[in-house]
Amino acid sequence: MPDREFVLRKHKEHRGKIEVIGKVPVETKEQLSTYYTPGVAQVSLEINAHPETVYDYTNKGNSVAIVTDGTRILGLGDVGPEAGMAVMEGKAVLFKRFGGIDAVPLCISKGTEQEILAFLRQIEPTFGAINMEDIEVPKVLRIVREASHTLSIPVFHDDQQGTGVVVLAALMNALKVAGKKKDVRIVIMGAGSAGMGIAKMLFFAGFRNLYVLDSKGLIYKGRKQDMNEFKEEIAQKTNPEGMRGTLEDAIKGADVFIGASGRPGILKKRHIRSMADKPIVFALTNPVPEIEYEDAREAGAFIVATGRSDTRNQINNVVAFPGIMRGLLEVRATAVSEAMLYAAAEEIARSCGKPSQESIISSIVNKKVALKLTENVAAAVAKAAINEGLARVSKDPEAVKRDVRSSVRRYERIERRFATPA
Amino acid sequence: MPDREFVLRKHKEHRGKIEVIGKVPVETKEQLSTYYTPGVAQVSLEINAHPETVYDYTNKGNSVAIVTDGTRILGLGDVGPEAGMAVMEGKAVLFKRFGGIDAVPLCISKGTEQEILAFLRQIEPTFGAINMEDIEVPKVLRIVREASHTLSIPVFHDDQQGTGVVVLAALMNALKVAGKKKDVRIVIMGAGSAGMGIAKMLFFAGFRNLYVLDSKGLIYKGRKQDMNEFKEEIAQKTNPEGMRGTLEDAIKGADVFIGASGRPGILKKRHIRSMADKPIVFALTNPVPEIEYEDAREAGAFIVATGRSDTRNQINNVVAFPGIMRGLLEVRATAVSEAMLYAAAEEIARSCGKPSQESIISSIVNKKVALKLTENVAAAVAKAAINEGLARVSKDPEAVKRDVRSSVRRYERIERRFATPA
Repeated sequence: MPDREFVLRKHKEHRGKIEVIGKVPVETKEQLSTYYTPGVAQVSLEINAHPETVYDYTNKGNSVAIVTDGTRILGLGDVGPEAGMAVMEGKAVLFKRFGGIDAVPLCISKGTEQEILAFLRQIEPTFGAINMEDIEVPKVLRIVREASHTLSIPVFHDDQQGTGVVVLAALMNALKVAGKKKDVRIVIMGAGSAGMGIAKMLFFAGFRNLYVLDSKGLIYKGRKQDMNEFKEEIAQKTNPEGMRGTLEDAIKGADVFIGASGRPGILKKRHIRSMADKPIVFALTNPVPEIEYEDAREAGAFIVATGRSDTRNQINNVVAFPGIMRGLLEVRATAVSEAMLYAAAEEIARSCGKPSQESIISSIVNKKVALKLTENVAAAVAKAAINEGLARVSKDPEAVKRDVRSSVRRYERIERRFATPA
Repeated sequence: MPDREFVLRKHKEHRGKIEVIGKVPVETKEQLSTYYTPGVAQVSLEINAHPETVYDYTNKGNSVAIVTDGTRILGLGDVGPEAGMAVMEGKAVLFKRFGGIDAVPLCISKGTEQEILAFLRQIEPTFGAINMEDIEVPKVLRIVREASHTLSIPVFHDDQQGTGVVVLAALMNALKVAGKKKDVRIVIMGAGSAGMGIAKMLFFAGFRNLYVLDSKGLIYKGRKQDMNEFKEEIAQKTNPEGMRGTLEDAIKGADVFIGASGRPGILKKRHIRSMADKPIVFALTNPVPEIEYEDAREAGAFIVATGRSDTRNQINNVVAFPGIMRGLLEVRATAVSEAMLYAAAEEIARSCGKPSQESIISSIVNKKVALKLTENVAAAVAKAAINEGLARVSKDPEAVKRDVRSSVRRYERIERRFATPA
């Protein structure tokens, strides 16, 4: 973890992490009258006459809004939209650096579900897609579900869907290394955005022996305490025997533990010892995981992953969201679907090459690996969108890759010259 | 006017005119963990503990939202938010180029006054100020008035306030050249955002012989037809004798005509001939003015100005809004006031040097002039904000100028290397 004083100092030095620049010069009278009045009126009239051309003549098709109300920033809870700005600006830099995407943080005042939905409808004309981020559950789940149905642009929920994708990708490789199959018994600890996203993604991928726990214990059909419509859905899709009980009960004989609980240290060595042969442990709570990497290995875990950058097998959404979003934008998608997410997960798993115990997932620290990853994920998502009829335009996968490459490389040049070194 | 095909082709080539880039590099693990997780959590906690530090640690203090619902884009009317994007992206480039400001176009779905107000309250945490743009009257006037009272960041209405500032600046110089005083008789044609802004600004500046007309004729105390609360206010502040009638009646003996009517060609040569000695004519409707420059001169106008870049004396808001906004941001202003606007107008008038019949207002095409203008306007606005107790922080005028200079020059370097020539 970097030193607090250092981090604050660097942020103060730059007064934030993003800026908005022009793609065109406005030096001469001719340029001014081409890109602003009176010339620009011709563009407005053209878009008004042919609404789809907004994707050709403006930056809409490469623009993403990162929307949060600051009610669940990282693991910090409700620290407010201003505090959220620091995180969302960072995310915007990652969108540009790894996906060539122009992302705008919109950290909005706290509001009801209906108010946030109204906000999303209002910004729909400006953006090619929306990235929902760090909003409390179950509010955010309702907003994402509703907005996905009513908006004509994709509403991507990274905490839920991005996490689901990257966990599925890591799990595919982990199972390969451990020689396990789809019938593995999987315990998911946590039923917030991440837990929900993981459970839904794994279910879509064909896993059926799923057991999801929240702070009250196992979720099962007929549970009354502390339920909501999303947990009901989980109850329908998981826990085939309707098992009740705690982590202690669920973990016995399980092949896989996936922690997205927000509860540091909750997984004990004895839990791992009670698991099936070659246990797989993903302890994803940040910064302090459900069990420390070394402790998990000592207790006999065959493969361990965390969300931290200082252990092997870091499971980090940044391998997923730039490519997914880029794929959606490339074909002007109208929505994001589970099939697109699954396609992304497959590409991410594949990108790892030959997985091993200590390498089940790609890292984006290597530039070339990162670029290849974005290219492939974007192409796979775009293809899936076309196949499902959720794309406004069709585009050849090779053309998608080429365009991703050129925009990311273009930004690398900008970064090299103008980003001040840390 | 640039060729339609050329303008469309240039816009398509770039797919819009702005992009969002990082101010910091995210190449190494250390950089990633400083500017994103886990390091960024320290910044969020700091902002949560000390809310004002959002101005130190994020880009809020240099960020402006350009908000429109597309109901009155340029002179085109209600062409919708997507069509508005083309204009607002251009405006964002001007904000950066001339003010060093990061502006984000938010072209929102059409909505009621209350819905747009709710939207402004939602985005308040993210931005240092809001620029309202191209929304139909009287809706926008109500929104701006209400938002100015309820939001803790400035809500600047360029069509109204920016226009008021630049017209006042031009008028100050024109009167100097013509040897006229504050007691001049001024006819303002148009009672939309621009007409209102001009009337209010001139009243604040001490002009009392103001006559405002809308499409129904002169506005006077007690008029019943086609009034609203804003025209009522105008009726109170102008037209001291309660004169009724049309342009024909009002223009007789007037010293100054200011057209913001949206009605091309409405001012005839005979009208100018009926004006007082040394008539001053500002025909600002774009692209076709109330009277053509040459026609006005032929009819005997002593000074003529239009909104067009192909005549002398172009009255263009771009000399005003970058500097005004920058001044507001420099002192983290809580609102924009008439005194700040007046201070801006004085600086713009002064920047012209020695005014003459053919040069009553500065142009921004000369880079050095433009920069000096932004510096001086920003410093004047900042100073006025401090004097009025509407600044969150105090800042020395020289420090304001220095910071404006360094940020504009920094962007000039970016523009030179990365903006593709037109």
